[in-house]
Amino acid sequence: MLKSIQESPVYPIVNPRSIAFFGASNRFTSMGTNLLTSLKSIGFEGAIYPVHRTEERVLDLPAYRSVSDIPEVPDMAIIVLPTGVVSEALEECGKKGIKHAIVVSGGFNESGGDGVALEKQLVKTANRYGIRFLGPNCIGVVNPYHRFNVTFFTYDSDPGFIGIASQSGSFVTQMFDYLSRFNLGFSTGFSVGNEANIDIVDCMEYLAACPHTRVIALYIEAIRRGREFIEAARSIIPHKPIVAFYVGGSEAGKRAGLSHTGAMAGPDELYDGVFRQSGVIRAHSIEELFDFCWVLGSCNQAKGNRVIIQTHSGGPGAAAADACGRLGLQMPILSDEIQEKLGLYVPHTGTISNPVDITFSKNNLDFFANIPGVLLEEEKADILMVYFYIPWKNIRQSFKNMGIHEDQMDEQFQNFARSLGDMFGQLRANHHKPIIGYTYDTTANPIIREIQSHGIPIIPGPTRAARAIEALVRYSRYREEMA
Amino acid sequence: MLKSIQESPVYPIVNPRSIAFFGASNRFTSMGTNLLTSLKSIGFEGAIYPVHRTEERVLDLPAYRSVSDIPEVPDMAIIVLPTGVVSEALEECGKKGIKHAIVVSGGFNESGGDGVALEKQLVKTANRYGIRFLGPNCIGVVNPYHRFNVTFFTYDSDPGFIGIASQSGSFVTQMFDYLSRFNLGFSTGFSVGNEANIDIVDCMEYLAACPHTRVIALYIEAIRRGREFIEAARSIIPHKPIVAFYVGGSEAGKRAGLSHTGAMAGPDELYDGVFRQSGVIRAHSIEELFDFCWVLGSCNQAKGNRVIIQTHSGGPGAAAADACGRLGLQMPILSDEIQEKLGLYVPHTGTISNPVDITFSKNNLDFFANIPGVLLEEEKADILMVYFYIPWKNIRQSFKNMGIHEDQMDEQFQNFARSLGDMFGQLRANHHKPIIGYTYDTTANPIIREIQSHGIPIIPGPTRAARAIEALVRYSRYREEMA
Repeated sequence: MLKSIQESPVYPIVNPRSIAFFGASNRFTSMGTNLLTSLKSIGFEGAIYPVHRTEERVLDLPAYRSVSDIPEVPDMAIIVLPTGVVSEALEECGKKGIKHAIVVSGGFNESGGDGVALEKQLVKTANRYGIRFLGPNCIGVVNPYHRFNVTFFTYDSDPGFIGIASQSGSFVTQMFDYLSRFNLGFSTGFSVGNEANIDIVDCMEYLAACPHTRVIALYIEAIRRGREFIEAARSIIPHKPIVAFYVGGSEAGKRAGLSHTGAMAGPDELYDGVFRQSGVIRAHSIEELFDFCWVLGSCNQAKGNRVIIQTHSGGPGAAAADACGRLGLQMPILSDEIQEKLGLYVPHTGTISNPVDITFSKNNLDFFANIPGVLLEEEKADILMVYFYIPWKNIRQSFKNMGIHEDQMDEQFQNFARSLGDMFGQLRANHHKPIIGYTYDTTANPIIREIQSHGIPIIPGPTRAARAIEALVRYSRYREEMA
Repeated sequence: MLKSIQESPVYPIVNPRSIAFFGASNRFTSMGTNLLTSLKSIGFEGAIYPVHRTEERVLDLPAYRSVSDIPEVPDMAIIVLPTGVVSEALEECGKKGIKHAIVVSGGFNESGGDGVALEKQLVKTANRYGIRFLGPNCIGVVNPYHRFNVTFFTYDSDPGFIGIASQSGSFVTQMFDYLSRFNLGFSTGFSVGNEANIDIVDCMEYLAACPHTRVIALYIEAIRRGREFIEAARSIIPHKPIVAFYVGGSEAGKRAGLSHTGAMAGPDELYDGVFRQSGVIRAHSIEELFDFCWVLGSCNQAKGNRVIIQTHSGGPGAAAADACGRLGLQMPILSDEIQEKLGLYVPHTGTISNPVDITFSKNNLDFFANIPGVLLEEEKADILMVYFYIPWKNIRQSFKNMGIHEDQMDEQFQNFARSLGDMFGQLRANHHKPIIGYTYDTTANPIIREIQSHGIPIIPGPTRAARAIEALVRYSRYREEMA
């Protein structure tokens, strides 16, 4: 465990005050230029010193012929140069006194052949000057809280609570849009590449200490420092969850990983054991990785595995019950006292067993406040799972039928959406039990978005939601055992 | 097998020329009114005769005091009345000579108690007059090709190729939006409710004969006529795929189903056996149901299970390889001849094993035409799986950097998107092998939409795509075996 976050070798890499930039130019198609464009577009407030042999200015910034010409010692260097000249550039950085770097360039170990020797040379150079570096063959880092993004894509979502360290750059950058569709975002993201110097364990330790990170996501093709991984994870789990997606376990996945980052994967069972022993929750797809992070980063701990499902539609209720049942989650019959209270709100066409199916009600207060309020009091249950299907276009149509004028519509509808969201926000504030929603709808629905804004995850579909609930139950148990 | 679609008892129910409508009024909050609103909004061209004791007009249509007053014998009646008066209304229909009906009203078998007797009475009435009816406790039907929709929600997507028969009305109506997000739609949808008269087997047989239906989707909580189900399915499979999502297998799912439609579910293994024996592909969630339908309804048959993955991003390639590997799909090493041809297009940072990872290329023609063109020629493979991540906002930004004016942007970008789509359209037209895409993006991306418009499914995420591919392989085998 780090005593303070500043102690981490990774700290200056995601929180630099000044950087030297190798490989950006005024050609828009080059990789380096793209990275610098991302950095400028997020509004980085530190100093940027492009290094360029010929250009006077790079993307409107004064350029320097050599890193030695830069008027201060930058906190960090970013290198996006052809493979053959990377070591030389790093050497110049060393001479200048720069102690941290990101090497984006590829063509090293992952390419085999000459690349292996070139990577050895790179490591030697770094060691000579005491430089800690991320990469090579990575796609950079993002820290939206520091307005810092040196990846291929612009980061225009809000900063979030998921910290990721990934052996695939795509699973950082190509997820910006994916996450923003759920109102989620990264606290900090690392593409670790070939891990020639800094590795995924270093990044985990940083994220464990990062105050913006509520949950740590890992994408793993192979773990290089097994023992350190387990030790670090075991020290983190009692205060912060870790979720890992590992693909090296199948023959095909292994082959793909080998050509991707040059790392050797191990058998699936071995990794399963490592994760279990570390208290790391394993995900089996990218969607699951982020579903789990969403729930683990938003919800209180679950005291047990007893779930109540609240729905207004039979099929989605049955599908959720089926998914929970298959995962070994319990679905208790409700106590007499709770059933009696529900009788006030659930119509005779509905069901007050579990799932609680309200069927059709004209009073929003029932579904959004009264019924979940009663269900959260049930001592025989630990978790509330709620189905949301809210046909907002139809609701706007009814507003019209009720005579609300087009001018007023947006405001009135937004108020309505907010009022429904607030009801769930109130429930979440007043009850300790986790509330997890599921839907076939998207956050394009303003009501879904309002409910989510109160820290209630609404996961696509009951199967994914049930799996995330099961992950929460498992993590809550690990956390208690390992504390 | 039906000799012609008109022979089906279901035909007049989804293709009526005229209908009697019980239970619609001028109150916008009533269920019946909602159904009539849906019917009007889809532009139904037949005659609608609302039956209402007191109103002169219902939603601007002339109303009739009694069904006997209607000037013709309607093809069908829709009944959305309180439980206690449904039988009586059906009796009036019988006297009028109406031979088909949909009973939307609930409160029958699924509610137990008096409901059971009321359902018996309903069946008796229907039998007395030779009426075939859907329901009770259903949510209606939709047939967009006939501009016919008597469900709770408006259908404003395009007609599609998925025919569904569902024991949950929600999995018809609440899917309208879900499917339209993938450019998909229903050919015909049946909410079968309690199946007191017409059941899911009748609907399957109709859908088998329906020329707009390329794949049949089933949502099942319990099959009532097991032998007939198997016989019907076995006769359909050689010319049309059937996909079923069954939830009754777990204890919790069974309980939920029982209170939902009053049907008893059987053990999971029993149903697994029924599906296998029938050649029905089983899905394990709603997402999977429609993913499978998408692929089975769009793609040619697969000759075998050998997959090539094409990607430009290592992580998504490895994740796909891992998912395929776990499902038992083969991922052959490419033949020398194909590897040689790929050498022309794949840069040295890329990989020409399988996955084929192009990494970064500036020439769109390579990823969208040349490389897949070569891969489709590989005799050692049966299926091409392609990763699509196309940062269209960045592309628009580059267009701007290249000097394209804001006025011209939309048109130029749309042309660009279309040209990429057309390349894949061309590949699909020239090759018999199935092409399946996967992405973490959505159809909000115009390029994804263009590619999909050529009948190439682009499934969310590699895991779901791999499962759909495995379903296609399985169906292709069944089809051959059962032909």
